[in-house]
Amino acid sequence: MTRIYDSIAVIGCGLIGGSLVRAARASGAAGTIVVAEQGAAKTRVEELGLADRVTDDIADAVRDADLVVFATPVGAIGPAAALAAPAYKPGATITDVGSVKASAGQGMRASAPAAVHVIPGHPIAGTEHSGPDAGFAELFQGRWTILTPSASDDAAYTAATQRLEAFWTALGAKVERMDEQHHDLVLAVTSHLPHLIAYNIVGTAADLEEVTQAEVMKYSAGGFRDFTRIAASDPVMWRDVFLNNKDAVLEILGRFNEDLQALSRAIRWGDGDKLQDLFTRTRAIRRGIIEAGQETAEPDFGRHHGAAPQTVAPKPASR
Amino acid sequence: MTRIYDSIAVIGCGLIGGSLVRAARASGAAGTIVVAEQGAAKTRVEELGLADRVTDDIADAVRDADLVVFATPVGAIGPAAALAAPAYKPGATITDVGSVKASAGQGMRASAPAAVHVIPGHPIAGTEHSGPDAGFAELFQGRWTILTPSASDDAAYTAATQRLEAFWTALGAKVERMDEQHHDLVLAVTSHLPHLIAYNIVGTAADLEEVTQAEVMKYSAGGFRDFTRIAASDPVMWRDVFLNNKDAVLEILGRFNEDLQALSRAIRWGDGDKLQDLFTRTRAIRRGIIEAGQETAEPDFGRHHGAAPQTVAPKPASR
Repeated sequence: MTRIYDSIAVIGCGLIGGSLVRAARASGAAGTIVVAEQGAAKTRVEELGLADRVTDDIADAVRDADLVVFATPVGAIGPAAALAAPAYKPGATITDVGSVKASAGQGMRASAPAAVHVIPGHPIAGTEHSGPDAGFAELFQGRWTILTPSASDDAAYTAATQRLEAFWTALGAKVERMDEQHHDLVLAVTSHLPHLIAYNIVGTAADLEEVTQAEVMKYSAGGFRDFTRIAASDPVMWRDVFLNNKDAVLEILGRFNEDLQALSRAIRWGDGDKLQDLFTRTRAIRRGIIEAGQETAEPDFGRHHGAAPQTVAPKPASR
Repeated sequence: MTRIYDSIAVIGCGLIGGSLVRAARASGAAGTIVVAEQGAAKTRVEELGLADRVTDDIADAVRDADLVVFATPVGAIGPAAALAAPAYKPGATITDVGSVKASAGQGMRASAPAAVHVIPGHPIAGTEHSGPDAGFAELFQGRWTILTPSASDDAAYTAATQRLEAFWTALGAKVERMDEQHHDLVLAVTSHLPHLIAYNIVGTAADLEEVTQAEVMKYSAGGFRDFTRIAASDPVMWRDVFLNNKDAVLEILGRFNEDLQALSRAIRWGDGDKLQDLFTRTRAIRRGIIEAGQETAEPDFGRHHGAAPQTVAPKPASR
């Protein structure tokens, strides 16, 4: 139990915000936890007892916070920060958990007074579920959190960055620092393009005339169902990711398309060696991910085989 | 314990063949089980005790079999069937488990004498692992097996088809019959295109200059790692699928590309509504798959969270 911050404010309590407050409490890394939420989500956060105080007033939420975490969709960070900024406690650290760091950083810096430290952050973790119920304290265990601090030799800023790093470490994450432009390119590859492709293939399959949706669902165990998991992720969050990381996503998508054209040609011309070469090479990447501790070695993701039909139940509040 | 066939021969004992012999024995659906395998795989099948007899002579394997199952890559079915055909027992049923039914059917029918019944088949099940060790008896539980019998009103052929259906049912599968052309189009959507896309994106990510392979692996939990599972599937099997289902795969790939161009334009022009509409629609498909009993409702496929780095160990022989 290492207390890193006496008081934190989390703006938005969905999958990531809800996991952060649970992990902060479980680890003892935060003292008082205040959440800003609205409507049904606010009520649910209160029912689940996730925070010491829940308010729908962002400025009120951040007033005493040593750490402010924006855990909203990326497009909402700037506007939320503008509401919060007049109430920031001098010396506070201002961060976020968004998947695009250049625009999130810009959104927070635009309104921040000189007396606070803006240090954007991004935990590379998640599930396809959303909302306050979807969070759990173990989400960040063994996963990477990337911080994108500004280039600064200010001693207070450096100390604030080290403290934020200690906070994420207390939550179970491994921490890396990175330039925000590079972060946005890396994530375009490891997260944004995969989501785009998954959304696209699920959409294509749903719109075919020759194959029914019922057939797509029945026979999805041949591979298709793997794509539906990330294509079930939060629509607003992902809309904002693509709108805010346009250039990097389109650049990586261009590379993907080039490669896909080459693969398509190899199929058309019956170039079996080319296909087999690629299919052999890709195995090594998965092995590397498993060895890096970022994936299970169990076949089929450890899915339970022979499962009876299940209904989709909301995740229990704690686990 | 319902005995469906007194004697079966399984040609090729990888993930599917190895699961089939385990399930056939566990269910009692087959009496004597003979496996044809070569080299190291033959030795391994013997060590695991998966069959009553193991031989590297295909004709010898099928001599007394009431059911012959070709469980090789699709491209090897025709040549293997040509070796087996002279030794088929009159009245035997000849089937396979390949992912492309038109070419598999053609491959088996080309050499089959009139006295046998060729009924192609395809269990929609699998994991990313290969070889005799990868199989397990529960693989087909609750999954669909598609049979593509010829249009025939011959009473013996009809009876043989019903018997093969009973065999798959005894192994835990649900059975559907389908025209082989339609099968190949449906599977192009639910299995072949997903594999192609997964292989392609993993290849693209591996070849980038601006993002290192180490970064791709470290930050893969943002979505990319989901694609690496099916991109770790058997290279030769998948080479053969694409070479043998070229037309359907290229047709579906064309649709995928059209949709991807539209999505790319929506990103470029900042059309958030269009993105959000698609991302909302795709959630329903996953819900349908879960309700159809073809997917787990657990978040993240039920992956264990907070896993320590693991080494890749071969799957235990039985489970």
